[in-house]
Amino acid sequence: MVTNQASAPTRLTRMPDKAVDDLAALHDLLDEVLLGHVAVVLDGHPVAFPTAVARDGERLLVHGSTGSSWLRALSGGAPASVTVTAMDAVVVARSGFESSFHYRSAVLFGRFAALDGGEKERTLDVLVDRILPGRSGELRRPTKRELAATLILALPIAEWSLKVSRRWPDDLPEDVDGPAWAGVVPLRGGYGAPVPAPDLRAGVAVPPSVRALSD
Amino acid sequence: MVTNQASAPTRLTRMPDKAVDDLAALHDLLDEVLLGHVAVVLDGHPVAFPTAVARDGERLLVHGSTGSSWLRALSGGAPASVTVTAMDAVVVARSGFESSFHYRSAVLFGRFAALDGGEKERTLDVLVDRILPGRSGELRRPTKRELAATLILALPIAEWSLKVSRRWPDDLPEDVDGPAWAGVVPLRGGYGAPVPAPDLRAGVAVPPSVRALSD
Repeated sequence: MVTNQASAPTRLTRMPDKAVDDLAALHDLLDEVLLGHVAVVLDGHPVAFPTAVARDGERLLVHGSTGSSWLRALSGGAPASVTVTAMDAVVVARSGFESSFHYRSAVLFGRFAALDGGEKERTLDVLVDRILPGRSGELRRPTKRELAATLILALPIAEWSLKVSRRWPDDLPEDVDGPAWAGVVPLRGGYGAPVPAPDLRAGVAVPPSVRALSD
Repeated sequence: MVTNQASAPTRLTRMPDKAVDDLAALHDLLDEVLLGHVAVVLDGHPVAFPTAVARDGERLLVHGSTGSSWLRALSGGAPASVTVTAMDAVVVARSGFESSFHYRSAVLFGRFAALDGGEKERTLDVLVDRILPGRSGELRRPTKRELAATLILALPIAEWSLKVSRRWPDDLPEDVDGPAWAGVVPLRGGYGAPVPAPDLRAGVAVPPSVRALSD
């Protein structure tokens, strides 16, 4: 994931995966991981659709084209859930059985509602700035036509679960005495250097929002 | 995602998101992205569960504890799908409306079946080596108890869709003539330095499988 941070080894435990009932930890995960998977039943099949998610206070925003059938199903009030997952590290144990990952994963349940009017335009800025902080201030305002072609949906952050795994390998004593190595390998994400579009006018500098990504 | 590669700018197009009917491209994505989201209806709700996925020829493997309720639902033949998504770059356009991502996303549909016996032990190696190539050869064999506590499920790679977006910003002519920058910012993933477990015996070296991650 783009914004994963490696778990600090000092925070590791021997505890198994655990459910966490901590709203601040949920907010942190939602504010860190941009990609969510929205599960919904479409044509009788459960399907998870990948999409950018943005927290707006106590609700989660998604957006897309009015032509998208799964977004239209959501705006019609279909029961849905959103899973947001950070993969933080590979846990290398002394057996395949004890090998695992450090991860954080949240599932939010409920029904989305479409936003409109001034709220729609404001939350579009929230989404734009979630993907690229500060970008909405560098751009012209959206046109009426663009707003009309965009669906913005909000899900209340009310019913949710959060699972966190951040432990050392918990190997059998005979494996600890054996020849195999054990530890964790952090997973990292980041941004590469910006690549200008072929039709970029001469003299248009890389803006602060884009420069900040690689800082 | 761990194994994302930046899109090569030379491969960019002006084409909109497109469905791709290319089995080799599907295999490439499944072999590159470790994290999948399995969508299933559980207790009446559509939910997407994050899990490591491994391709074994023309089927996709997932695994976990026999105590996992969603894996048990899958092994009971519940209709399911698996979404595997690579986020490759942020597309920075001259309007919020044209801003987007380079991504590749596959959805596989069908029903999982539990594997057993010799096939179960062989595919467990496939999963272990998918997460850490070569690791199964560095470890002792799984015990009967460990095998009994593990579910391995396979989904045929038969019904699927693949969507790829890899385009330059497609801005309005008046925006191209305006002051805003446009381009793409690649998203990168990788591994940090291995951290040994606190109970690692002195003299046990980092194995080739782990060393290879950061090479």
